[in-house]
Amino acid sequence: EVSRILDDLHPADIAELFEELNIDEAKYIYFLLDDDKAADVLIELDEYDRLRFLESLPSEVIARRFIDKMDSDDAADVISEFDPNRQQEVISYIEDANVAGDIVDLLNYDENTAGGLMAKELIKVKENWSIPTCLRSMRRQAENIDEVYYVYVVDNNGKLKGTLSLKKMLLSSTGKLVSDIYNPDVISVGVDTPAEEVSNIMDKYGLVALPVVDHVGRLAGRITIDDVVDFMREEAGKDYALASGITGDVEASDSIWLLTKARIPWLFIGLIGGLFGSRVVGSFGGILDLYPQLAFFMPLIAAMGGNVGIQSSAIVVQSIAAGTMGLASPIKKLLKEFSVAVLNASVLAGLAFVYNMLIGSQEALTLTVSGAMFSVIIFASIFGAVVPLFLNKIKIDPAVATGPFVTTLNDIIGMGIYLTIGTFFYNWLA
Amino acid sequence: EVSRILDDLHPADIAELFEELNIDEAKYIYFLLDDDKAADVLIELDEYDRLRFLESLPSEVIARRFIDKMDSDDAADVISEFDPNRQQEVISYIEDANVAGDIVDLLNYDENTAGGLMAKELIKVKENWSIPTCLRSMRRQAENIDEVYYVYVVDNNGKLKGTLSLKKMLLSSTGKLVSDIYNPDVISVGVDTPAEEVSNIMDKYGLVALPVVDHVGRLAGRITIDDVVDFMREEAGKDYALASGITGDVEASDSIWLLTKARIPWLFIGLIGGLFGSRVVGSFGGILDLYPQLAFFMPLIAAMGGNVGIQSSAIVVQSIAAGTMGLASPIKKLLKEFSVAVLNASVLAGLAFVYNMLIGSQEALTLTVSGAMFSVIIFASIFGAVVPLFLNKIKIDPAVATGPFVTTLNDIIGMGIYLTIGTFFYNWLA
Ligand SMILES: [Mg+2]
Ligand SMILES: [Mg+2]
Ligand SMILES: [Mg+2]
Ligand SMILES: [Mg+2]
Ligand SMILES: [Mg+2]
Ligand SMILES: [Mg+2]
Ligand SMILES: [Mg+2]
Ligand SMILES: [Mg+2]
Ligand SMILES: [Mg+2]
Ligand SMILES: [Mg+2]
Ligand SMILES: [Mg+2]
Ligand SMILES: [Mg+2]
Ligand SMILES: [Mg+2]
Repeated sequence: EVSRILDDLHPADIAELFEELNIDEAKYIYFLLDDDKAADVLIELDEYDRLRFLESLPSEVIARRFIDKMDSDDAADVISEFDPNRQQEVISYIEDANVAGDIVDLLNYDENTAGGLMAKELIKVKENWSIPTCLRSMRRQAENIDEVYYVYVVDNNGKLKGTLSLKKMLLSSTGKLVSDIYNPDVISVGVDTPAEEVSNIMDKYGLVALPVVDHVGRLAGRITIDDVVDFMREEAGKDYALASGITGDVEASDSIWLLTKARIPWLFIGLIGGLFGSRVVGSFGGILDLYPQLAFFMPLIAAMGGNVGIQSSAIVVQSIAAGTMGLASPIKKLLKEFSVAVLNASVLAGLAFVYNMLIGSQEALTLTVSGAMFSVIIFASIFGAVVPLFLNKIKIDPAVATGPFVTTLNDIIGMGIYLTIGTFFYNWLA
Repeated sequence: EVSRILDDLHPADIAELFEELNIDEAKYIYFLLDDDKAADVLIELDEYDRLRFLESLPSEVIARRFIDKMDSDDAADVISEFDPNRQQEVISYIEDANVAGDIVDLLNYDENTAGGLMAKELIKVKENWSIPTCLRSMRRQAENIDEVYYVYVVDNNGKLKGTLSLKKMLLSSTGKLVSDIYNPDVISVGVDTPAEEVSNIMDKYGLVALPVVDHVGRLAGRITIDDVVDFMREEAGKDYALASGITGDVEASDSIWLLTKARIPWLFIGLIGGLFGSRVVGSFGGILDLYPQLAFFMPLIAAMGGNVGIQSSAIVVQSIAAGTMGLASPIKKLLKEFSVAVLNASVLAGLAFVYNMLIGSQEALTLTVSGAMFSVIIFASIFGAVVPLFLNKIKIDPAVATGPFVTTLNDIIGMGIYLTIGTFFYNWLA
């Protein structure tokens, strides 16, 4: 009866159910599933749950019951999670040498490249085939593929020439050759194209599948939109988390331990930064001793620096990720950031000035707060933009530069600027 | 010669080119395009550029040259950007009454629902048709559709019964009825399903198209993955921007004016909050006068409160958006957030304690910093989680609660907590 319920559930739903079960319950349920469904469920599981589950199974079972039933991209992803010895063992138990070869091939690519996203399953026809030959071959090839989307046209060397849309197949007369009706305007990427660029291209051109070619232009595989959507969501989640000071992909439903582990590293960096900041402030102990009202505006200046810095780093990080940085030189970009900063800084420092005039603050304090606000906003804007641009240049993910990192540094430097300006005005005017 | 170059470019590329041109250049280029391509380019433009371009054209030209060549979803989106009178006028010039009817129908739905994402173009067959009847009808229907993806099966009342995959059409024998071979396990959504849920469903089940049914289960339209990817990217961009204190969808390449407009509102809120915070700190002027070293750690406490608050609001916001909040009650969620907070707070307050002992700070200061850090972390964690949970409850997008909003409030309250604890320890020990 349990197995009748399972029959009606989608693999993604069974996977969700699994995450609530302990390992023995999970195994019991698992072996009630037929092999195809069991393989689909396995792919939908979290990497952590999948490894825990597969750990206890012999390599032969993994190869025959699971890997053999998967698409090549998923098979390679699952196998890549094992240690090298286990990988070899599992691959040696795969019955079909072609399948094993495809998987070994896919294991060579970095997971953040087109090669890492692509599958070997696709339908291809030769440009010199007739439509009936083509249809016969397509029927045979289609048996191993879940979703067809496009039919790729290659020449005798396997080089990608174009596509044959399924719609065209539905509408075309049978007297023609593939070369008469295929569309040669095909968008493709190389095996080494970064995954981020792949997702930008598929979004921009509204594609559901994208062919991948090797270094000499031969059709090497096909990327489907479902895997790109997974990638996009993971990336967006990671960037959002980084901007919020969280490492890794945690959710509210994860364990207390996982949540703490994801949150404490950035807090620790914030602590170190803050303690260092307390030394910076402490080095101005003399002036604070004389004019403790300087302290009243310290949180304001720190907050403005933090907020402005996060804004400029976020805009740069998002534009780099979306590939919309434009062609302007870094100098030009920073000049623009500078102009925006001057506009923002003038308005906000002006308002702070008016406020202090209205409440009748001391002249030195009024000038210090507005002067420091102006300087801190400009410094934080430029700093927030420079750090991700620089990280991107040296090939580090600029997203790590957002959030607590920029805020913490801005806090320290902002306090230094504020108290330096304060020392100047108070020495001059008081 | 220009028009030969344009012929080779994809509409999305021409749209990108357009954003660099002034309105006259754009018009010149535009009228070199054939109607189909012109319509495609129009859809790819920014809303702002599109309106600017269409403004100067008569409604008849808009209807005949553009709207008539678009898919119904894009047509409705473009028309919805006009004011009501212009909408009526453009619709009245649409030649085909069915097309006009479809567009009027789509205009009824909120853009953030399944109805707002769907198009009327789809292929449907009746369950009692034979395969040859079915193929004939599909060929006819396919002429108006760019991508087929799935064939939907309906009964005589138009109710959605299931799907017929194209692969199955390729492989099936002609002697059968649709009802023999269709797959009745079809995932669908209602016209009012929120767009966020639509994107979660399409991601979870790896779908490229999703049928939409009306309130009585009749097939009303179809959502395709390209539009959902657009939605997902926009949403992720908006959430990221909000978390970073930016309103609206700006990029590094936008104008200085647009960038300033997107950034200044949150900075203004930060300014108000910070000025208010200066009053809070000022109300502790007496104790700061006596013990100015209390000021040294103010930026640290403010930063810790800000960082912790952003983390907890980010986790809640992301989990709500992804639909992975789980089923636990709000009380249970907050208890968990509390446990994580106690763990983090103990570690960090402990480290701050050790630091102050090592550098030989006054006893009262050591106790104040650690005590306040502990309290502020716990307060900020709970506060950061409660605000988005509450906003979600009263149907406001919880994403607005992240970033500067939570930070600013945490700054003010954090300073209050710190100085209250400081007053207590100094009065007691010094
Ligand atoms: Mg892979
Ligand atoms: Mg798109
Ligand atoms: Mg795949
Ligand atoms: Mg996948
Ligand atoms: Mg990224
Ligand atoms: Mg999980
Ligand atoms: Mg701060
Ligand atoms: Mg719409
Ligand atoms: Mg998915
Ligand atoms: Mg569409
Ligand atoms: Mg679209
Ligand atoms: Mg949202
Ligand atoms: Mg733009």
